[in-house]
Amino acid sequence: MEKRVHNFNPGPAALPLPVLKEIKKDFLSFRGSGMSITEISHRSALFDEVLNNAVNRTKRLLDLDDSYHVLFIQGGASMQFCMIPMNLALPDRPVNYINTGTWSTKAIKEAQIQGKDVRVIATSEEKDFSYLPYDYTVDKQASYLHFTSNNTIKGTQWQQFPDREGVPLISDMSSDFMSRPFDVKPFGLIYAGAQKNLGPSGIAMVIIREDMLERVPDNMPTMLKYTTFKDNRSLFNTPPTFAIYVIDLVLKWLEETIGGLKKMESINREKASLIYEVIDNSKIYQGIAEVKSRSMMNLTFRLRDEELEGRFLAEATENGLIGLKGHRSVGGCRASLYNAITMESVKSLIEFMREFEEKL
Amino acid sequence: MEKRVHNFNPGPAALPLPVLKEIKKDFLSFRGSGMSITEISHRSALFDEVLNNAVNRTKRLLDLDDSYHVLFIQGGASMQFCMIPMNLALPDRPVNYINTGTWSTKAIKEAQIQGKDVRVIATSEEKDFSYLPYDYTVDKQASYLHFTSNNTIKGTQWQQFPDREGVPLISDMSSDFMSRPFDVKPFGLIYAGAQKNLGPSGIAMVIIREDMLERVPDNMPTMLKYTTFKDNRSLFNTPPTFAIYVIDLVLKWLEETIGGLKKMESINREKASLIYEVIDNSKIYQGIAEVKSRSMMNLTFRLRDEELEGRFLAEATENGLIGLKGHRSVGGCRASLYNAITMESVKSLIEFMREFEEKL
Repeated sequence: MEKRVHNFNPGPAALPLPVLKEIKKDFLSFRGSGMSITEISHRSALFDEVLNNAVNRTKRLLDLDDSYHVLFIQGGASMQFCMIPMNLALPDRPVNYINTGTWSTKAIKEAQIQGKDVRVIATSEEKDFSYLPYDYTVDKQASYLHFTSNNTIKGTQWQQFPDREGVPLISDMSSDFMSRPFDVKPFGLIYAGAQKNLGPSGIAMVIIREDMLERVPDNMPTMLKYTTFKDNRSLFNTPPTFAIYVIDLVLKWLEETIGGLKKMESINREKASLIYEVIDNSKIYQGIAEVKSRSMMNLTFRLRDEELEGRFLAEATENGLIGLKGHRSVGGCRASLYNAITMESVKSLIEFMREFEEKL
Repeated sequence: MEKRVHNFNPGPAALPLPVLKEIKKDFLSFRGSGMSITEISHRSALFDEVLNNAVNRTKRLLDLDDSYHVLFIQGGASMQFCMIPMNLALPDRPVNYINTGTWSTKAIKEAQIQGKDVRVIATSEEKDFSYLPYDYTVDKQASYLHFTSNNTIKGTQWQQFPDREGVPLISDMSSDFMSRPFDVKPFGLIYAGAQKNLGPSGIAMVIIREDMLERVPDNMPTMLKYTTFKDNRSLFNTPPTFAIYVIDLVLKWLEETIGGLKKMESINREKASLIYEVIDNSKIYQGIAEVKSRSMMNLTFRLRDEELEGRFLAEATENGLIGLKGHRSVGGCRASLYNAITMESVKSLIEFMREFEEKL
């Protein structure tokens, strides 16, 4: 058995070990075809089954009705920052954004580049995005209200989604998608880069509601229109077949091994609360995000001083606890506890954190 | 050992078996890190080495000087159809295209959607793209001259690149990139979807010359500007890390096992000529493309009648010869002989073709 570490990377991130083992086992001959999954046609019956399974598992896990379409688009969340205003901003109507960190800021910038009437109705920038703003007014005429459901870098997460005044919600769920169930009805569009909870990097899942597709302007580059992906079942051109295959396996693991999103959420809540408990009962660790805005996916914390942080991170790495350094814009430490992070990894981290404090 | 077939798929296509075996071997712990290649950060030293290697191998294989930049961009060749006119069409100057098939036609359409002054200076459409047009006049004022170096669907390939009258060449080399050496100097930009000769689907390699970058307009979506990818070494956002890793392994195989592009070309020419010989000396097989326009990557041919073609394809599949059905827009048969197709696979196909004819 190969050596494995406890992988707390913020993304690309840990994938479920049973999924990795299955990929490895079948890598030279996918389903007995004599070809690797990377060598089969995207128009073959074999791949069609993979794609259909991935779409249907998503629909079941999120309880989507037929008005929602599940699409796979290249370019990650960053390409969505540009496609959303290009496709969904209505003429002479503003677009609303809530700014809660690095990724929201980038999404806002892309709408501004396109000359849209961008209104940032709330921001927590003045406190370095350490909390989520709950006090704001939505433009009733807005084309949409965009927010980031979980802020990977700052360690905040919306526990209850923003009020919307009838305006369609659009959310970047890259770092907490499929970590908990939620009601999709207020959403016109949901998107998630795969490399946190879904699969490898190089693909985004986009869930779009039928009525949003009517907004797509005709005269646009083909590869930038949501209708291209919907009309061709994400097969207008060759999609990232390997990535979709891994996503299907991860969703299968979510459905069949974990038992769905409710169970996943309760496991995720337990993992996060065990670590927050260590932080909150410690003399050397201190949470960065405001308590009521805290994320259960990305837990940000500091140590008493930088020298101690350096030692903490170095010793963690020596102990096989990887990826705990905070983003350079925040500093400190961050433990990313995506779906694939096992309770065993969480317990190893807790044990290490306690021992590190005790021996000081 | 797993069952393997002779894979003549047009793309996604066969990859070198030693590459697939290495991916499989290291899949749970990349370079002893305790993490899969799909689980490591794109900003880690481990991945940086992969990316740098892939870029440097490309530069060595194609003998690129420092005025050329090697970029990795998502969205396949189809995204390049739209990015090229958006970034590189000069104001008040026409763009020139040569139309040699399905993919050229799509590239032309995307430039037209953007309202560029598109001049198709040559086309072989009137003979269903079965030949390459050698008689045309390039606009000396053109922003660029675009052509498709190998036409996967029709089975034609430029053996000598088009005359250009000083205008920068741009070429879609998706289906023959890295199959032969060539002089890059006339090219302003070269692009190739990876899923033929380079790696898995979901990524395109783009080679752009420094002076082309000066054309990129400022006020464009960030993810659609070539300068974004150049300025950030293809790491503005999370790239498809697995795909880049596979590309690096394929390029390593090309350099170290095959011995470079000159050797690769001579192997590819031999493979193709062996099969064309069977076709040209047969009473039942007939080549589709004009002889002097023939491709050494995608060999298109018909059988005497459709009923016979059906039997040929069915029996080929039974004999482990996969992916020989022609594209629906052409019909007939097609053998795709990319770099990874071994002489052993070619000989199996030849033997099958001869036996099929003899027993009639």
